[in-house]
Amino acid sequence: MKVTFQIEGASPVIIACNAGDNLLELARRANVAIDAPCSGNGSCGKCRVRLVEGELESVQTRHLTDEEYAEGWRLSCYSKVLGDCTVFVPDIASAYQSRMKTADLSSPQEVVIFQECQEQLHASGIRFENPFRAVVLHLPVPSLEDTMPDNERLSWGIRDALGVERVEIPFAVMVGLAHILREENFAVCVKGRLEGDCFHCMEITGSEDTVLVGAAIDIGTTTVTMVLADLATGAILAKGSSGNGQIRYGADVINRIIQQGRPGGRKKLQDAIIKETLSPILVNLCKSAGISARSILRLSVGANTTMNHLFVGVDAASVRMEPYVPSFFSWDGLLAEDLKLPANPLAPVLIAPNIGSYVGGDITAGTLASGIWDKDEMSLFIDLGTNGEIVFGNRDFLMSCACSAGPAFEGGDISCGMRATDGAVEACVLDEATMEPSLTIVGDPDQRPVGICGSGIIDIISELFRTGIINAKGLFVREGERVKRDDHGMGRYVLAWAEESETGREISINEVDIDNFIRAKGAIFSAIDTLLKSVDMTVDVIDRVYVAGGIGSGINMKNAVNIGMFPDVELEKFHYIGNSSLSGAYAMVMSDAAAAKTAEVAANMTYLELSTYPGYMDSFVAACFLPHTDARLFPNSCRS
Amino acid sequence: MKVTFQIEGASPVIIACNAGDNLLELARRANVAIDAPCSGNGSCGKCRVRLVEGELESVQTRHLTDEEYAEGWRLSCYSKVLGDCTVFVPDIASAYQSRMKTADLSSPQEVVIFQECQEQLHASGIRFENPFRAVVLHLPVPSLEDTMPDNERLSWGIRDALGVERVEIPFAVMVGLAHILREENFAVCVKGRLEGDCFHCMEITGSEDTVLVGAAIDIGTTTVTMVLADLATGAILAKGSSGNGQIRYGADVINRIIQQGRPGGRKKLQDAIIKETLSPILVNLCKSAGISARSILRLSVGANTTMNHLFVGVDAASVRMEPYVPSFFSWDGLLAEDLKLPANPLAPVLIAPNIGSYVGGDITAGTLASGIWDKDEMSLFIDLGTNGEIVFGNRDFLMSCACSAGPAFEGGDISCGMRATDGAVEACVLDEATMEPSLTIVGDPDQRPVGICGSGIIDIISELFRTGIINAKGLFVREGERVKRDDHGMGRYVLAWAEESETGREISINEVDIDNFIRAKGAIFSAIDTLLKSVDMTVDVIDRVYVAGGIGSGINMKNAVNIGMFPDVELEKFHYIGNSSLSGAYAMVMSDAAAAKTAEVAANMTYLELSTYPGYMDSFVAACFLPHTDARLFPNSCRS
Repeated sequence: MKVTFQIEGASPVIIACNAGDNLLELARRANVAIDAPCSGNGSCGKCRVRLVEGELESVQTRHLTDEEYAEGWRLSCYSKVLGDCTVFVPDIASAYQSRMKTADLSSPQEVVIFQECQEQLHASGIRFENPFRAVVLHLPVPSLEDTMPDNERLSWGIRDALGVERVEIPFAVMVGLAHILREENFAVCVKGRLEGDCFHCMEITGSEDTVLVGAAIDIGTTTVTMVLADLATGAILAKGSSGNGQIRYGADVINRIIQQGRPGGRKKLQDAIIKETLSPILVNLCKSAGISARSILRLSVGANTTMNHLFVGVDAASVRMEPYVPSFFSWDGLLAEDLKLPANPLAPVLIAPNIGSYVGGDITAGTLASGIWDKDEMSLFIDLGTNGEIVFGNRDFLMSCACSAGPAFEGGDISCGMRATDGAVEACVLDEATMEPSLTIVGDPDQRPVGICGSGIIDIISELFRTGIINAKGLFVREGERVKRDDHGMGRYVLAWAEESETGREISINEVDIDNFIRAKGAIFSAIDTLLKSVDMTVDVIDRVYVAGGIGSGINMKNAVNIGMFPDVELEKFHYIGNSSLSGAYAMVMSDAAAAKTAEVAANMTYLELSTYPGYMDSFVAACFLPHTDARLFPNSCRS
Repeated sequence: MKVTFQIEGASPVIIACNAGDNLLELARRANVAIDAPCSGNGSCGKCRVRLVEGELESVQTRHLTDEEYAEGWRLSCYSKVLGDCTVFVPDIASAYQSRMKTADLSSPQEVVIFQECQEQLHASGIRFENPFRAVVLHLPVPSLEDTMPDNERLSWGIRDALGVERVEIPFAVMVGLAHILREENFAVCVKGRLEGDCFHCMEITGSEDTVLVGAAIDIGTTTVTMVLADLATGAILAKGSSGNGQIRYGADVINRIIQQGRPGGRKKLQDAIIKETLSPILVNLCKSAGISARSILRLSVGANTTMNHLFVGVDAASVRMEPYVPSFFSWDGLLAEDLKLPANPLAPVLIAPNIGSYVGGDITAGTLASGIWDKDEMSLFIDLGTNGEIVFGNRDFLMSCACSAGPAFEGGDISCGMRATDGAVEACVLDEATMEPSLTIVGDPDQRPVGICGSGIIDIISELFRTGIINAKGLFVREGERVKRDDHGMGRYVLAWAEESETGREISINEVDIDNFIRAKGAIFSAIDTLLKSVDMTVDVIDRVYVAGGIGSGINMKNAVNIGMFPDVELEKFHYIGNSSLSGAYAMVMSDAAAAKTAEVAANMTYLELSTYPGYMDSFVAACFLPHTDARLFPNSCRS
């Protein structure tokens, strides 16, 4: 018995199987990428494939309309093979794209925010200096009177040029030294790292190529973002992002940890991030910057604890099992060659240190970028990603915790979710009387809507709540033209009719979307609440709130407070700081002082493990309402 | 058109070709190992294959008897393909074996000599200490109250056990740390290197496996010899040797350098030494010692300059081209993983430093082992290998030079040459009147002769000369029952008739053998002569002569003087010191002080490049007689 996967834009893959085999499992075995954020438990509805030939035993579920089911669409996680069959698999790359977060410096606003962050760090006294140097040498050509061997000749030239005592020439450079010296007639450029009185060579090129490159990488559970920077000037040479290729092993860290624990799983998950995700981006960015990958002399990574473990290929099992002891917090001496990254093999890979199982390097790097470690005032730092992380404190102390928010803020759990690019509904106001929406759409004035991005979702839910269309539980309680119900009675609000949208499909938000979102925002708020309680404080003490992550600069803080996602403090206290993990990673790759400061911040940060913290679950349950079961916490919410 | 190679003991290989293609070239292209010490110039006669089917255009040459030619034996270097054909290729491994030198510690005498060397170094004040340590740890098991991550837990344990400040855990150890800690319930052994206040972890195992291993390797042009030693006690855990797999690319360094310069050549030559030669020996020795290759924490290599370049994969072209500038003399920071050697990937590979294009690490390591750097008396150190190297001096100065002796001392250029194992003629006396030989044969009293080893060849030539059977040019000048001539008039002396020998083939030495040997001994003597002249000294000043290399402990120094190979000094001044390159390498792997002393010896040694030294060629020509054209230099020679 066999299944043929017809993959969009790729060659078909055939795999032998037995009757009753699960289709998603088969796809994974055959290395066929199917988008499965929920890792196959039927809840996300993203793993759809279309049956072309043969038969599958397959439950329809609420994720597929009758029409879609009739067209052959099936959820692969809910399908069993009955006999030979052929299924069409949509291109997963597009699926990734549709869930991509916005803080990848693709918009001018993000670039401005990013640069303000760096200036802030300068202002805080962080010196943007690193030890990488390019030395152009014109060495004497050997003769019978001057028979110094190649390596001593090179060392002599470098010592003379830099005034160092010692020169270290590594294997990779030594092996090609005889050739390049003679090819370039002993006029070369040596790139490397200055450490005390020693220069460590890393690359030798012709005398024209003197560029020194750093790569700063934010590895999110859902999205990966990267910039290449000139290590001498700080200029951004190239930037880019893509979905995290591990997504087919589950949308959240828990599912990824389970998958990496299976036989061969660690290698698969590591390949998914390094070979399938980071390497292609690095290669593309090098191409667009017109540099050789070997010129990348340092990399820095901001990633959560699980992503860090999967990135380096270390067993992450203990991250999710009591007593929640990860294999490492910080890691010294990691090199690009250890991970087979397309960069100079000897390039150090700086990992922003983790401080707990669920507060990782993305948060320590982000905390660096936020600057809260340098301020007297009490700051709350909120990173909205697939996990939500909270840091609270000032220059005297820093507390942190994490909660699992799920992919809602990145559009993952929302049926019409998308990134904040052309066609995204990024803001929304509803008329209380008519219930008619007034949408702000990214793009040209005549752009039709395609889907809803993170900030749009917050607005819609806030407005639905304000206008009494949904109740505190997120259920539809007003009837009207735009409120529809399916056969199972599930309500939805239609933002754009099929004929008004770009795609010809209705743009709407349903009760499942709203429920997913409420649980996500409840997780965030209860984490903040618990963290404050743990130090016997209340929201009154908060001087500033820094919001980071992929939700985008268009986030309406008033609406976020309105629905009980953020604490009810004065709106002018809120600041959106973009992808702070990437900002922090950039600072680390550019500046030794920034890297050292990140380590210091991490060492001084206290980690609160919410999953074993008394009272957290109660707080979470209480927060899964609009705005909260205890409305006194939100005096300024529209419905309080 | 195609050629099928039927390889003894292996699967056949078929290669497409054109009419007129050279058979040896085709074999190399097809990666078929054919023994070709002279690299295909027709002089050695070792590249014989047997034509099974089809036709070859092939010159018979003096290397094949009529009978052999009739049986289908052909020299592959002298054969052109005319059409489809099949040839039988003898197993090259046996060919290597037959040319293997003796100084591989396989005989008890060699072991005694080896150990005396080490004791001598102790006596010279070299402390046998190294920084490798095994630490057994019983770490506390993590709990909710003790959530230190794995790497910090391990570091803490090591700092506590060793009293060091810092611990470095490399990637290879980190990646498996989570697993092994839990598998061994946090009771483990960590092996690594102590450097100042820092312990560099290299391997983590169960708490029972505490062995620390060093590998000392002598890479000769013809033969490779290795010992595994316990780094804590110095005990030899295993020892072994084999032919250098590069032999099919030429018997001497010049031919190897030419071959490595061809497209893909560097990789082929490196693979031949690392993949095909060293790796199998290392794996076998580990097996026989009952250890894991990952327990090998340091390696040391004594090898000539060319072998060192080919070993590390660095272009050796400049070694043989004016101005004779090698790519390196010494090399710091080389690791086993750089060369993909089966050992701990982080094991440092110590290369005994080269001091010139033709005086390499085998000589600096050998000089260390000889102890001449510690003596007041004037010593001459002679290493007899494929190249002959000479060092002269004492604690105040050291001079050195090299000459190309060819493989004669290792049996390579001698038709009945073999190693000093069972059946080898190791000594010989001739009756001047009857010309009958009296042979000493290695093995049981009733062992029949198989061939002639290095010391036997010296004896035979010396005796043929003493008894007037050959003249000063090495030509047969007496007739007798044992002196035969072939159709071309070439004379030979029969040591054992076909029916007396173990193989059923006659054991003899012919004029070509003698001529090869005279050129080899002439090269050695003229190098000694030139070196002494360069410092305005004569043989009278020599207090001691240390003879090292593969020729074996049975060497008769009197006979070696008799034929003008060694200078005519009192016989009690001669000392055979075995494989001094291996002895030196062993000292280096065991002792940091020995490694440092080798570097010091190398730094203080002056190199004389004979190929450009005025007068050397004249001296060589003059030495290509028995004993010498100037007989006054050999007052004690039998014929003077």
